[in-house]
Amino acid sequence: MTTAASAHCSFTVAAHFNENSSNFASKFDASSFYFNSNGEFQKISLHSSPASKICSKGYVGRLRALPEEGDTFSEKLPTPILDTIETPLHLKNLSHKELKQLGDDIRSELSFIRNETQKSVKASMSVVELTIAIHRVFSAPMDKILWDVGEQTYAHKILTGRRSAMRMLRQKNGISGYTCRSESEFDPFGAAHGCNSISAGLGMAVARDLKGKRERIVAVISNETIMAGQLYEAMSNAGYLDSDMIVILNDSRQSLHPKLEVPKTPINALSSAFSKLQSSKLFRKFREAAKGMTKRIGKGTYEWAAKVDEYARGMLGPLGSTLFEELGLYYIGPVDGHNIEDLICVLDQVASLDSTGPVLVHVITNEDKEVKIEKRIGVSNKYKEDPYDSGPQPSRRSQTYSDRFAEALIMEAQLDKDIMVVHAGNGMEPSLRLFQEKFPDRLFDVGMAEQHAVTFSAGLSCGGLKPFCIIPSTYLQRAYDQVVHDVDRQKIPVRFVIPSAGLVGSDGPINCGAFDITFMSCLPNMIVMAPSDEVELANMVATASCIDDRPVCFRYPRGAIVKSNSSICHGVPIEIGKGRILVEGKEIALLGYGAMVQNCLRAQSLLSELGIEVTVADARFCKPLDIKLVRQLCDNHSFLITVEEGSIGGFGSHVAQFITLDGKLDGSIKWRPIVLPDNYVEHASPMEQLALAGLTGHHIAATALSLLGRTREALLLMC
Amino acid sequence: MTTAASAHCSFTVAAHFNENSSNFASKFDASSFYFNSNGEFQKISLHSSPASKICSKGYVGRLRALPEEGDTFSEKLPTPILDTIETPLHLKNLSHKELKQLGDDIRSELSFIRNETQKSVKASMSVVELTIAIHRVFSAPMDKILWDVGEQTYAHKILTGRRSAMRMLRQKNGISGYTCRSESEFDPFGAAHGCNSISAGLGMAVARDLKGKRERIVAVISNETIMAGQLYEAMSNAGYLDSDMIVILNDSRQSLHPKLEVPKTPINALSSAFSKLQSSKLFRKFREAAKGMTKRIGKGTYEWAAKVDEYARGMLGPLGSTLFEELGLYYIGPVDGHNIEDLICVLDQVASLDSTGPVLVHVITNEDKEVKIEKRIGVSNKYKEDPYDSGPQPSRRSQTYSDRFAEALIMEAQLDKDIMVVHAGNGMEPSLRLFQEKFPDRLFDVGMAEQHAVTFSAGLSCGGLKPFCIIPSTYLQRAYDQVVHDVDRQKIPVRFVIPSAGLVGSDGPINCGAFDITFMSCLPNMIVMAPSDEVELANMVATASCIDDRPVCFRYPRGAIVKSNSSICHGVPIEIGKGRILVEGKEIALLGYGAMVQNCLRAQSLLSELGIEVTVADARFCKPLDIKLVRQLCDNHSFLITVEEGSIGGFGSHVAQFITLDGKLDGSIKWRPIVLPDNYVEHASPMEQLALAGLTGHHIAATALSLLGRTREALLLMC
Repeated sequence: MTTAASAHCSFTVAAHFNENSSNFASKFDASSFYFNSNGEFQKISLHSSPASKICSKGYVGRLRALPEEGDTFSEKLPTPILDTIETPLHLKNLSHKELKQLGDDIRSELSFIRNETQKSVKASMSVVELTIAIHRVFSAPMDKILWDVGEQTYAHKILTGRRSAMRMLRQKNGISGYTCRSESEFDPFGAAHGCNSISAGLGMAVARDLKGKRERIVAVISNETIMAGQLYEAMSNAGYLDSDMIVILNDSRQSLHPKLEVPKTPINALSSAFSKLQSSKLFRKFREAAKGMTKRIGKGTYEWAAKVDEYARGMLGPLGSTLFEELGLYYIGPVDGHNIEDLICVLDQVASLDSTGPVLVHVITNEDKEVKIEKRIGVSNKYKEDPYDSGPQPSRRSQTYSDRFAEALIMEAQLDKDIMVVHAGNGMEPSLRLFQEKFPDRLFDVGMAEQHAVTFSAGLSCGGLKPFCIIPSTYLQRAYDQVVHDVDRQKIPVRFVIPSAGLVGSDGPINCGAFDITFMSCLPNMIVMAPSDEVELANMVATASCIDDRPVCFRYPRGAIVKSNSSICHGVPIEIGKGRILVEGKEIALLGYGAMVQNCLRAQSLLSELGIEVTVADARFCKPLDIKLVRQLCDNHSFLITVEEGSIGGFGSHVAQFITLDGKLDGSIKWRPIVLPDNYVEHASPMEQLALAGLTGHHIAATALSLLGRTREALLLMC
Repeated sequence: MTTAASAHCSFTVAAHFNENSSNFASKFDASSFYFNSNGEFQKISLHSSPASKICSKGYVGRLRALPEEGDTFSEKLPTPILDTIETPLHLKNLSHKELKQLGDDIRSELSFIRNETQKSVKASMSVVELTIAIHRVFSAPMDKILWDVGEQTYAHKILTGRRSAMRMLRQKNGISGYTCRSESEFDPFGAAHGCNSISAGLGMAVARDLKGKRERIVAVISNETIMAGQLYEAMSNAGYLDSDMIVILNDSRQSLHPKLEVPKTPINALSSAFSKLQSSKLFRKFREAAKGMTKRIGKGTYEWAAKVDEYARGMLGPLGSTLFEELGLYYIGPVDGHNIEDLICVLDQVASLDSTGPVLVHVITNEDKEVKIEKRIGVSNKYKEDPYDSGPQPSRRSQTYSDRFAEALIMEAQLDKDIMVVHAGNGMEPSLRLFQEKFPDRLFDVGMAEQHAVTFSAGLSCGGLKPFCIIPSTYLQRAYDQVVHDVDRQKIPVRFVIPSAGLVGSDGPINCGAFDITFMSCLPNMIVMAPSDEVELANMVATASCIDDRPVCFRYPRGAIVKSNSSICHGVPIEIGKGRILVEGKEIALLGYGAMVQNCLRAQSLLSELGIEVTVADARFCKPLDIKLVRQLCDNHSFLITVEEGSIGGFGSHVAQFITLDGKLDGSIKWRPIVLPDNYVEHASPMEQLALAGLTGHHIAATALSLLGRTREALLLMC
């Protein structure tokens, strides 16, 4: 079965193989663009690779979420003002009316990009006016603009010379979905997991002061990330160091608690006037003077005067505003995030202040308004928003590992009322909402508070419950110390579920789960496992549920499951540390871990065609290893190839350590590890990434052929 | 040279070997004690091992910080009330006067323990009254008392059946310096790196509510840890979930910014009365009712009423108090932490409240007062406080790796004004104070804000400075995601300095740096190195200073340096990825990483006595590996033993991966890895820990002998 993809298509995230005889060609024509040293866009050649090449040589993968014919060249509204903007410098002379028109232009451009690329642009839509105001007031790239959330930066990218490249957003050799130092000098720091911009900005501010420079530092944070502990660490330190920097809180919910229903703060003439007053030079100077004076008068009085000032202003701000003051940031707001005049006025004032320490500007954006604006300017939206990554629409979506995980967990939870879910990281997967609907009291989504999520899970476990703590691989890195000390060292039964393990397509290295096998399997008490398919996934949910004397973790990839039409069964617990042999062969044993078992099977199928019968085993456990199985493979084969979608130091290293201590590596077996390469695999389609990483069935088969001395066939297989 | 240690001695942290011919006996008589299932103390047998055994068989290590004769059996004041307390239940019937006397008794007991064990008890001294009040009001172990900081829990341990065991504090088989679930049921959660108690307590509170139980949860936090992001994540989530729990902030500095000089809040009759009023049932009920009413009246009004209430109370509290209210905790305070009557009154009120959500009680303790009290009750203090770990007094202290690091860094910093220091983790090492004195504007100690420290360093680097980011190995775990995404992925030159790498003696597994080689060397852009002695350390400081195109890290152990009388020289940069051979031999190559090179040399010396000449090489780099050196070792030897003081997945795994891909492992060399064992090595002296871990020179030599088939000699060596 061969699916032809049309040119300029954006084949996205989930793609999977149906047959084992796939022949993967890794020769993609690179679409290329680059920037000169001034960050100006120099050259762009966006000739997308003909699909025929991708699908040549009998490639039998299924490409999903292909845009429909009508979408591919969607209608584009005229963008007269935007067309005149090549660098942010060109914003300086526009009138307020023209700036408003520019906002509409950018919105229609974003809509166009959304329809072209099938990527979500929602987060960027809500900060169009804010982005314009920032670039109008500040002088990037001299002034440093740092963003917390990659998805909010598309308007910024459009205004900073990357407009035409946006058609290749999040595609191989195309524009990244995040800010990226290597992509443009207008990106002074890489946005990754949210919450790093104040810390990085503060570092730059301190460096600027020490170097005697004058540039301004602007960090834009979001209420999506306001739960993250690092933000508080950073704000507190910024308040203490008192370096000049401007933090802009882009707030679409008007609450520090994303899920707390609070009455909306009215943004009216009074608040607008007050924000302007707060940000005025006179007011701040007066306040500084008053502070200085009271400092001299006496200690008690100083504190009271500071308090009166702080609270008096806090009374006008929305709930949460004094929090920033307590941390040492001067609070200004709330400002209407869609009123470009107000934004420019306030930012102008803030930008012109010297030596007044860190300032927080609270900007309120309104998502309802967003929809209205889009209707007004008549932009067509052929893209249906999918909260989980970009791309495939729910109706068309294949079943993913996450879906199956949620189904399996719900089945377990129906039988065991102690099962709880704690979720942390960037946005809950839609499949978990089903769990939430069924058991609203048994799911805790704490947002970007991974450290808390892990220790909170440990607390639930100490209280007699059975927590499943779900944190995507890369976000789990943020809670590593808690995993070590609050769970593993105390041997507390917390069940870590690690989605997005391995490569993640268009999210590139930002959300790639490369290191979890390595950093989890070195922990003494942790059981570390990975399912090779969706049936095994259900079994591992059942297994984890049974383990009640120590922590356990299992990982699964972001992509679609293997057999999407397999019936959903209740999981059966697996014996701890028990792997299995899937195909019996000789000479070469392929020992796969997790989803890579499927690629081992593909390799086995390819090799079988060449008359080579290899063994394929599913390790299931990285820790404890199935030593009986490993010994058996060593005894009956000449070569052992371990395959994992993870970095060095993980499964392969555990196998090697065991077999060398067992004496098997002293000549009786030759071991070859296949792991993720020692670099960050950039954004591309999942299949392109697998090819880049050398983890396809073809790569595994080629390795086997090389070991057998059949180098020519190995080369043939790869070309 | 053999040093005899007297019985009951506490041989502590730093100890080092002068000669290579040491013969280490790992047979220590275990002093043992255990608790029954009720947490009651059942049996204790504290027969310390005769020193003759420790030093038998020609053991030539130098034991430092031995207590002087006079210290060993210090005078003990009578403790009449404490003698009557076997469980916290016995506190219930004491009068306030008797409770005060109990406070004095505990202080004198703590002083006695300090003199006996040479361990710091300062942090526990300041919470004596608070500990008494907590155990008077609450009913542990039914009620859960969680502590954030291990060092504050000694009074708690004394009152919960572990009094007599305290003489073995932080010694092998003795009491842990931290709370520990396996040690007592009065420790519902293990205090580790500070800041986990609210998260864990909230989990327990949620579990309690779901299980329909009634116990109370008390989490004691400290202003030492108030910078940690996890606390904010936890408080914010506690405010949102609104479960009943009591957070007690033990505050000796009255500021959220540990280093910010703010006027002290007067604790007087008014604040005392106000705290009592705040905590009264009537007041809280009134407030709840008012909140409910205003909620019904209208949205705007509700918010204003909540604000008025919050700020009105905030005006009376010290700076920072409304922060907790903003996060959703009901603030009560400040309460005098040395006034046992006030404490009991407030806690009694708080404990009797039902369904009122999380409460924060702000307790102010005063360290000056502390000294006065100790003088009043006439306790002798023969122990001089050393801020860095327990044990050795500064005057007697050997030079440590940290000292030499600081000296080397100062030399570099004198030549290069861009060199900055960012420090995070638990307490800055005293050696760094010298740097701070010389360059006050170039050192940033951010406290327990590791995540911020890493990204802040990245910001400094982007701003053109050369940051050395110093975070002890185990605390670096808390900033792993920032290391990955804010530094390594962006290839930003940040120089990570990792002290306390490997085993850490009496700090046990809490501060043990076991995993850093593994989790750092899997990162694509990171240069990972470790010095084998103090000269190499200075060289690596110089090397790191030179590297300006990517991140680099190096680790060093907590202990004393090798040649304490070597002259201090300016470091010379090492070629990246260049190891060295120290001793040329044949058949067996010992390839050491970091400080373990010294133990390889000890093994070489032992083997040499037996007529076996082995090669010893210092790898210096885990990444990039010196592949030329490794190839050479493989070509010229039959066996390659890699030795590191780190977990599986680190240096040895990198060597194995290289040599197997290079074909060397296919029969030409036999590889044996020596790593830390797959368990948490409990607190003991450094030498005892090394023996437990199997990392002494004797262990390495025994491994070599076994490989050569000389099993009998190997066994002889170990007994």
